[in-house]
Amino acid sequence: MKINENFLKIQSSYLFSNIAKKVNAYVKENPERTVIRLGIGDVTRPLAPAVIKAMEKAVSEMADEKTFRGYPPEYGHDWLLTAINTNDYLSRGVKLDNSEIFVSDGAKSDCGNIGDIFSVDNKVAVCDPVYPVYVDTNVMSGRAGDFESNSWTNIVYMPCTEENGFLPEIPKEKVDIIYLCFPNNPTGMAITKDELKKWVDYANANDSVILYDSAYEAYITEDNVPHSIYEIEGAKTCAIEFRSFSKTAGFTGVRCGYTVVPHELVRGNVEINALWARRQATKFNGVSYITQRGAEACFTEEGKKQIREIIAYYQKNARTIYEGLKDCGFTVYGAKNSPYVWLKTPEKMRSWDFFDLLLNEIQVVGTPGQGFGPSGEGYFRLTAFGSAENTDKAVARIKEYFCK
Amino acid sequence: MKINENFLKIQSSYLFSNIAKKVNAYVKENPERTVIRLGIGDVTRPLAPAVIKAMEKAVSEMADEKTFRGYPPEYGHDWLLTAINTNDYLSRGVKLDNSEIFVSDGAKSDCGNIGDIFSVDNKVAVCDPVYPVYVDTNVMSGRAGDFESNSWTNIVYMPCTEENGFLPEIPKEKVDIIYLCFPNNPTGMAITKDELKKWVDYANANDSVILYDSAYEAYITEDNVPHSIYEIEGAKTCAIEFRSFSKTAGFTGVRCGYTVVPHELVRGNVEINALWARRQATKFNGVSYITQRGAEACFTEEGKKQIREIIAYYQKNARTIYEGLKDCGFTVYGAKNSPYVWLKTPEKMRSWDFFDLLLNEIQVVGTPGQGFGPSGEGYFRLTAFGSAENTDKAVARIKEYFCK
Repeated sequence: MKINENFLKIQSSYLFSNIAKKVNAYVKENPERTVIRLGIGDVTRPLAPAVIKAMEKAVSEMADEKTFRGYPPEYGHDWLLTAINTNDYLSRGVKLDNSEIFVSDGAKSDCGNIGDIFSVDNKVAVCDPVYPVYVDTNVMSGRAGDFESNSWTNIVYMPCTEENGFLPEIPKEKVDIIYLCFPNNPTGMAITKDELKKWVDYANANDSVILYDSAYEAYITEDNVPHSIYEIEGAKTCAIEFRSFSKTAGFTGVRCGYTVVPHELVRGNVEINALWARRQATKFNGVSYITQRGAEACFTEEGKKQIREIIAYYQKNARTIYEGLKDCGFTVYGAKNSPYVWLKTPEKMRSWDFFDLLLNEIQVVGTPGQGFGPSGEGYFRLTAFGSAENTDKAVARIKEYFCK
Repeated sequence: MKINENFLKIQSSYLFSNIAKKVNAYVKENPERTVIRLGIGDVTRPLAPAVIKAMEKAVSEMADEKTFRGYPPEYGHDWLLTAINTNDYLSRGVKLDNSEIFVSDGAKSDCGNIGDIFSVDNKVAVCDPVYPVYVDTNVMSGRAGDFESNSWTNIVYMPCTEENGFLPEIPKEKVDIIYLCFPNNPTGMAITKDELKKWVDYANANDSVILYDSAYEAYITEDNVPHSIYEIEGAKTCAIEFRSFSKTAGFTGVRCGYTVVPHELVRGNVEINALWARRQATKFNGVSYITQRGAEACFTEEGKKQIREIIAYYQKNARTIYEGLKDCGFTVYGAKNSPYVWLKTPEKMRSWDFFDLLLNEIQVVGTPGQGFGPSGEGYFRLTAFGSAENTDKAVARIKEYFCK
């Protein structure tokens, strides 16, 4: 019995597991200190009342044989697909058929599993820094090559740095699969419609596929920033889009997301939609009825209003962090269209050293930029998902420590 | 951009999707007929009151910032792992560490995803007939070879027929990965501890890995039938076990299962546990808090009692089908340790013809044996998961049609 040797290439464990281990060890040794966690992008606000109400009703339906629900449809209940379609797409002028939307237990699963439908022989391009799941899942499936001098030999890295305004440049070599995430994790920077159009044109011209992660679209405040890649002409023939209820509706602990695969996306005479449909029907069995009813409630008038308030709460946190750090002399990015603040470490300190410094000295947890890729070195991510109180406290601690 | 060409090899869609399409078409054309569905193994009893109570409480916790839960631990909450460990294993003399148990959104996902951690260059053996997911997922990943004369060239089929009492025989050639499901889906037949020991010995002697699906263990009534493969000495060094709350606690619409990977299972000097841990941490983000609280409640005294009653209800249905068909002259198998009845079609009728006959003539839906593999031809599966009323009705219709 032979294992998948690609797994052995991944040296360390998943970035956020590493952080959790370090923080847990610190807490164990220093139980008297109050640690403020602005590291992992996990929300803290309770679910919207409309969502709670819908899930309570769904639970009670499961208690009665007349309303009990067994296996959900593999791709999601029609009422949820319709709610997504109407509110997230049609409202922005994007026409989709419900059969182009696949509800799942989260965007992380979908981003990870999407590789199943593509050949191992594809050239993958990622932004650098980048959400580690895109890279790690390609390492596991054998597309990444070997790890040499802090990067994978067969992955095309597209540096996103201060110099290019954290926007990747079109690769000079031909690439097949391009991961884009906007508003970006970790940099918090957004892309304009004009800039995204260049990528769509490149992908269509080169028969590439763009895997577009728009998990943070709810944080967009600027008009010329697209919420969906399908707002860009030509995207349906080259792009798959991942969406999540985690950051929009606080579903990190509830688990729901969805993936859009337009029928127009055809490669090698095959509809990619049919491949994903087959993958999901075979290796997945749908999402909890209770979860789906909760997700549906996000699109009621009541739910939308409540969720907007929660988003506004986090947006205020983002501004607090951004402004606070700026006042303190830090160079900061993001926040405007994103729950993330991306900051330069002081005096080019290495990002894991800065992580240790913040944890040990002022008990604030962030995410070291290096964990997101080589170009993340020297940067650090703070998230707006804490409570307002903790966010204010963390900024005060940072100010006290660094502004003195 | 190249697709995974293995997907093109799978000709038709997933078995149960096909059945659903046929049934939906029939219902549309014959709205006045009442169709009784004993095809897909989907439960119909409402969730146990203890589960409902726990999920109601969990939902209300999500409404309050003090008790709100964000990202679940990737492998399951400790309290659920402990409940599983204590009740499903320790109670049967099997000692596991919680780190050997991985909670997921269902056994289908795990059975499908487990292939990620194994090399494509492994010889796979499956029972025939077999749950299609084992085969289809290996086709997708490139382990199955080509489809020729109703079977895959690189898969070793182990026929389970009347002649061998529906128990697979140890393959003559060396195989690397062996899928076993007992009590079996679709035949409903169980394996004794002595018989299973032979497989464990074979796997240990040949460095093979057994993927053991015990989703139906709750239906076991006989003492010499193991509920877990780890009741067999030596299994920890050769077996991975899949479990589900779907058929035990009616969770088909709630989505929860788990996989056990013992630390002692080592291949090529690598702990398989570490590979699965890495796979799940990277491509999965844990199970809904609400779902996990519901699953935990299955192990309270109240929950266990209520669930036993639900199982007894389905077991009675299984006996009703089994006895009814036997009275009517059918050759029937299963039912004793299983929610499935496996029957021989009358006069060697082809199983899809028998499917059509039952649907068109008496509006009873079952699953054609051929859909489970070449040796399933001439057989048909009925499930005990309908309501008692519908089960009685279906048996009465069968009797009226075939016994006249």
